[in-house]
Amino acid sequence: MNGAVELPLGQPELEFRAAGDTLVRRSVLPSGIRVLTERVPGSRSATIGFWVAVGSRDEHAAGSGHPATHGSTHFLEHLLFKGTETRSALDIAVSFDAVGGEHNAVTAKEYTCYYAKVQDRDLAMAVEVLADMFTSSVLDPEEFESERRVILEELAMAGDDPADVANERFFEAVLGSHPLARPIGGDPAAIDAATRDAVWEHYRANYRPNDLVVTAAGAVDHDDLVAGLTAALGGAGWQLDQPAAPVERRPTETPLLDGTSPLTVVERPGEQVNLVLGVPGLVATDERRAVLSVLNTVFGAGMSSRLFQQIRERRGLAYSVYSFAPGYSDAGVFGMYAGCAPKNAPTVAALLRTELERLAHHGVTADELARAAGYLGGASALALEDSDTRMSRLGRAELALGEFADLDEALRRVARVTVDDVQALAADLADRPFSLVAVGPVEQSAFRSVVDASEPRTDVA
Amino acid sequence: MNGAVELPLGQPELEFRAAGDTLVRRSVLPSGIRVLTERVPGSRSATIGFWVAVGSRDEHAAGSGHPATHGSTHFLEHLLFKGTETRSALDIAVSFDAVGGEHNAVTAKEYTCYYAKVQDRDLAMAVEVLADMFTSSVLDPEEFESERRVILEELAMAGDDPADVANERFFEAVLGSHPLARPIGGDPAAIDAATRDAVWEHYRANYRPNDLVVTAAGAVDHDDLVAGLTAALGGAGWQLDQPAAPVERRPTETPLLDGTSPLTVVERPGEQVNLVLGVPGLVATDERRAVLSVLNTVFGAGMSSRLFQQIRERRGLAYSVYSFAPGYSDAGVFGMYAGCAPKNAPTVAALLRTELERLAHHGVTADELARAAGYLGGASALALEDSDTRMSRLGRAELALGEFADLDEALRRVARVTVDDVQALAADLADRPFSLVAVGPVEQSAFRSVVDASEPRTDVA
Repeated sequence: MNGAVELPLGQPELEFRAAGDTLVRRSVLPSGIRVLTERVPGSRSATIGFWVAVGSRDEHAAGSGHPATHGSTHFLEHLLFKGTETRSALDIAVSFDAVGGEHNAVTAKEYTCYYAKVQDRDLAMAVEVLADMFTSSVLDPEEFESERRVILEELAMAGDDPADVANERFFEAVLGSHPLARPIGGDPAAIDAATRDAVWEHYRANYRPNDLVVTAAGAVDHDDLVAGLTAALGGAGWQLDQPAAPVERRPTETPLLDGTSPLTVVERPGEQVNLVLGVPGLVATDERRAVLSVLNTVFGAGMSSRLFQQIRERRGLAYSVYSFAPGYSDAGVFGMYAGCAPKNAPTVAALLRTELERLAHHGVTADELARAAGYLGGASALALEDSDTRMSRLGRAELALGEFADLDEALRRVARVTVDDVQALAADLADRPFSLVAVGPVEQSAFRSVVDASEPRTDVA
Repeated sequence: MNGAVELPLGQPELEFRAAGDTLVRRSVLPSGIRVLTERVPGSRSATIGFWVAVGSRDEHAAGSGHPATHGSTHFLEHLLFKGTETRSALDIAVSFDAVGGEHNAVTAKEYTCYYAKVQDRDLAMAVEVLADMFTSSVLDPEEFESERRVILEELAMAGDDPADVANERFFEAVLGSHPLARPIGGDPAAIDAATRDAVWEHYRANYRPNDLVVTAAGAVDHDDLVAGLTAALGGAGWQLDQPAAPVERRPTETPLLDGTSPLTVVERPGEQVNLVLGVPGLVATDERRAVLSVLNTVFGAGMSSRLFQQIRERRGLAYSVYSFAPGYSDAGVFGMYAGCAPKNAPTVAALLRTELERLAHHGVTADELARAAGYLGGASALALEDSDTRMSRLGRAELALGEFADLDEALRRVARVTVDDVQALAADLADRPFSLVAVGPVEQSAFRSVVDASEPRTDVA
């Protein structure tokens, strides 16, 4: 068993056994397409994803030369379901519905992924339809207008969800003017202003062979997949005989943040106040990611975590309370969420902050450390029973990390984390500038004692 | 392979092979406890559930003799996590967190289920902790007060979700004075009024050996489970040597509905109006359940369904639109959901109704019928890869249906459904009294042309 394998862009073929006796293979095709598979013994189904390393942060990126407006990556993702040169939107939907497959896409801040989960016998169909969507969508102007309305409804739905709003505002508050701060879907004004031609240009500029990463896990044969994929893409008119290097991975850099806000209050009616409090976090490739996993587990995952025990179990102040720690190429966030009664919002916000500071000053116990290792081992093993998780892990390895680490290796890294490591990271995080976001029936002045807000931002919505 | 097996309450032992070469076993122990397992070849994890056939509908049930107030079944479910004679709330949480297991519970209208999903090596622990919670919770008065606040926060969170509110109001609108109409969690006034002693009495009256059904699926050995369960329950003080018959299944009856409302408008701020339109549905054991599955698939499941195509794809009027059809012992509902811009709410409500009437008048095509069969086959096969789904299927078979049907048998029943069957059921449903619920920034008068509302109900919240 290999534990961890580097994924150099110039290496055409890689093959190794991973934990659980799966077979991982990776091919970099001459056209620059990368294909990664993980064959799971005994599996009867597979999940396949078509990825590009383009997300909401890349809209209006300096030097990109394309005029995409905010939200256009997500808009484009919707449009790929709306018809190709040979398939209508209904044809695409019927292909997957007729076999009971799952079929969807996700637009994230640094990538877009179109995926399907199907029984083994339907994988060839999934490859063909996804390849067609990826290469040959027409972005019909009439469908564009109809989908603009659908996206405005999607944004309106998210706008009616106070936890969603608090989460989006939190990224803006912590990351300030950084492109990762922006909401993935854009805003209604940007969607109203989007033009079919700008989205078309975004599509043509970013959906090329050397942008494409295909990952699949479960009941999948690597050679069959490469052959089926090549045939489908070639049949759709892609020139695969022109050699090209894969696009370079996004460089990882230390974040440069400005424009962060200590306090954002979105005052609106409701029964609860949705609070998110946190600080800038770690980048995806930070060497302390395993420490962060342990810290986040002890602090805010599961019913035995600090936040759950302190805020919910002991004081009954919230139903939902947890922490989260996503990392990107050149920034990350560490956040704590709680939904609570308006009258308790200042208390809960103060408790969230106090708990992180307590972790920084007093660290974790050896019991907590051992429990976190057990938690991460068991939860990861259960998650990896699903081919979705394995497909996503391959994508993250190829696009973000440049390295594939199997479960055994991931747990070895966790096992090396010490109580001192966790306390040192907690101290580092607690020393960063805090941002607090509150959405609900509460006034900014309620948080005066919690946040030293020289320039608080209040929106009334 | 057996296709379907009856589950008579008086039969002590049953064993058969089911589709996918799983081994299903059922024991009715002398104490009245029922244990059902489904062993899945090659599985490395298991999901186990402890069930009682007591749900929100049973609060204040006539002749029950217990004083439980509305919401107390859900309140009790929370309290079982709060400590036993030998384990604190933290001990219970640590047991599962230390192995990365999933551990939760669900209170439904006709049952409550406590469950855990763990790796195979942790199943014995899960049995012991769940058995302790089930038999020996103390309902400490101080924990009771703290949890009252947590539940009020849970209700507040749901109150801030307009789709949740629309769904709860829809059950009330369709089912009127029927006990299934009530929201599962109760309302804040009932939770404020709940007493520890009333919930304690609810617990003692309903958590007895002959109420208990344990189901487990995945990497599970039936004999080991029965032995471990018996030891754990006996060790907790349960008298298992007193013979008792299992509690009878809830009788299935034709619903008698009164107090239904044609129009409920909850006027409140927001960006969307959340609409639910529908009619009384079928009971869980109705012989047309397979027809209903096909109808619901063609009508409102997946991207190729009628509702998705008509409301979203062609007109761009909604992002989320679908239908649903839950069945209970003596009532059911058939509903259609859409979230849309306030100005479009009357149009969308009218379209939802028109689509059901179109199905009633013109039926489905042979293509749609075939696609629905493929959808149900594929989606069920993928869902059954997860031991959660199998554990729940066993519980539903034992508690609600009195029959276990495997995937092959379920698909045979679907394959027998004809276009005439679907049209006849659509005509039956479309002939029932419609109820429309709208939650959002909209006035009752907007729906005048959609619903013939002699007694509309408007709440401003």
